[in-house]
Amino acid sequence: MTDSKGRLMQGEQTDEFLSGIDTFFFDCDGVIWLGNEAIAGAVETVNKLRAKGKRIFFVSNNSSKSVASYMKKFQRFGIEAYPDEIYGTAKVTAWYIKNKLNFTGKVYLLGSESMAEEFDALDISHTGTGIGAVVQGLDIHVNYMKMIKATSYLAKESCLLIVTNEDDRLPVRGSNIVIPGTGSIGAILRVASRRQDRILIGKPNRNIYDCILSKHSINPESSCMIGDRIDTDIAFGIKCGFKTILVYSGVSTADEVEALRKKSPEMLPDYCLPTLADLMRIP
Amino acid sequence: MTDSKGRLMQGEQTDEFLSGIDTFFFDCDGVIWLGNEAIAGAVETVNKLRAKGKRIFFVSNNSSKSVASYMKKFQRFGIEAYPDEIYGTAKVTAWYIKNKLNFTGKVYLLGSESMAEEFDALDISHTGTGIGAVVQGLDIHVNYMKMIKATSYLAKESCLLIVTNEDDRLPVRGSNIVIPGTGSIGAILRVASRRQDRILIGKPNRNIYDCILSKHSINPESSCMIGDRIDTDIAFGIKCGFKTILVYSGVSTADEVEALRKKSPEMLPDYCLPTLADLMRIP
Repeated sequence: MTDSKGRLMQGEQTDEFLSGIDTFFFDCDGVIWLGNEAIAGAVETVNKLRAKGKRIFFVSNNSSKSVASYMKKFQRFGIEAYPDEIYGTAKVTAWYIKNKLNFTGKVYLLGSESMAEEFDALDISHTGTGIGAVVQGLDIHVNYMKMIKATSYLAKESCLLIVTNEDDRLPVRGSNIVIPGTGSIGAILRVASRRQDRILIGKPNRNIYDCILSKHSINPESSCMIGDRIDTDIAFGIKCGFKTILVYSGVSTADEVEALRKKSPEMLPDYCLPTLADLMRIP
Repeated sequence: MTDSKGRLMQGEQTDEFLSGIDTFFFDCDGVIWLGNEAIAGAVETVNKLRAKGKRIFFVSNNSSKSVASYMKKFQRFGIEAYPDEIYGTAKVTAWYIKNKLNFTGKVYLLGSESMAEEFDALDISHTGTGIGAVVQGLDIHVNYMKMIKATSYLAKESCLLIVTNEDDRLPVRGSNIVIPGTGSIGAILRVASRRQDRILIGKPNRNIYDCILSKHSINPESSCMIGDRIDTDIAFGIKCGFKTILVYSGVSTADEVEALRKKSPEMLPDYCLPTLADLMRIP
């Protein structure tokens, strides 16, 4: 029944829903926190689900954090988390290059220090000459010389273009500030390189899931993806065959859900919630 | 006869063609010079045309140069040129804001020092609070903080987005280096601001011509645009009703002309030339 999809989850639905799910996939920014601030009640909800025996994975398109830096952030917020539960695109991109592409060449990395750490951990060389792939993540120190380098490497048709994610903005609420995301920075490369081909690692693609599956076994039917973006999180959840919940504490809005209801109802999340806290607050 | 269009100009056609043209519009980069190097014979051709009594205008999408800095460059290359003949998008953008938009507010300028000079010359304020328009040109010092500022201003729907040009690359020949152009940098703003609306000042739009017409009277039928890009220079020339010549010393290639012949023959230049020098060298 498509019409019941994309509606706010009602109190009476919660218990039945929770009992059918054994594994939760959480997006982080816009769901658990906004930048450096926790979203009210979100931390408690994650910890309560774990206490109930649910399995938890953190699946983030954010490429600026290594697993080690995620661990610090989780600790600071008082969230119980383990390295093997954390799948940001820095780690997943390194895994993909090494294990899916079996790429042994050098990459040019337009990304963060934390990304470099994940590449170092898998012995992926990202300095020197003979570049065979450009990897683009979030680089807040992006400058014109780096753009020239990246697009010049890409002029060679054999040079791969691998992008961690194409989120146009970082989630910011309650402020007039707009922070361009990895996808906005990547737009420079797309336009300047005149290349249509690229490997997209992050959500909505299922590479993060494949990386998890290389270590864990998952039953998608009893899994649920919770995210704040329709075009990445919910699309990813649907692609993996999970149940999906959209929270309104980040990027996507109730208006966008209503627009979707007419335009492409197959992309609707199963449920919506004002914030993650409402999943457990409902009696 | 469309089939004769977009062919190399033959020797016997030159005299007749030149006698029918009294005004030449030259693109600069890719036609007269490539970066800091003159294209062989190009300077002599411009000077010869002037000696023959032809009127000359320099019409460039480059936004990184003020008229004063163009004058220095022309002098260095030994080209006779006058401020009133030089129309780069730094000058034309300032003119457009002041005289076409009648905009009296403040702009946020993502561009060069030379652009700022042209804005100062017309008393267009580009510092402080209360920004009503974002103007984007070539800024080789572009950084993440500037991107955040520009897209945050653009979050306000009333804030105008004015772009000097959308050239994806700067012309470079005989090198593997690709230099992203103003249009590539602008792609960040388009994606991050999620705005489709923008005012495009440069070629292929005819604002440069309108700026010239505000001071000079021109007969388009006896005018000729010479440029190295089909999508900007030739499109501009056609839009203004000029004759058009494409030179192969910059961005567009003979292959692109052949593709055009099938796809959109109405966009073909009247003639092609290997370089500008061939316009006068032909016996």
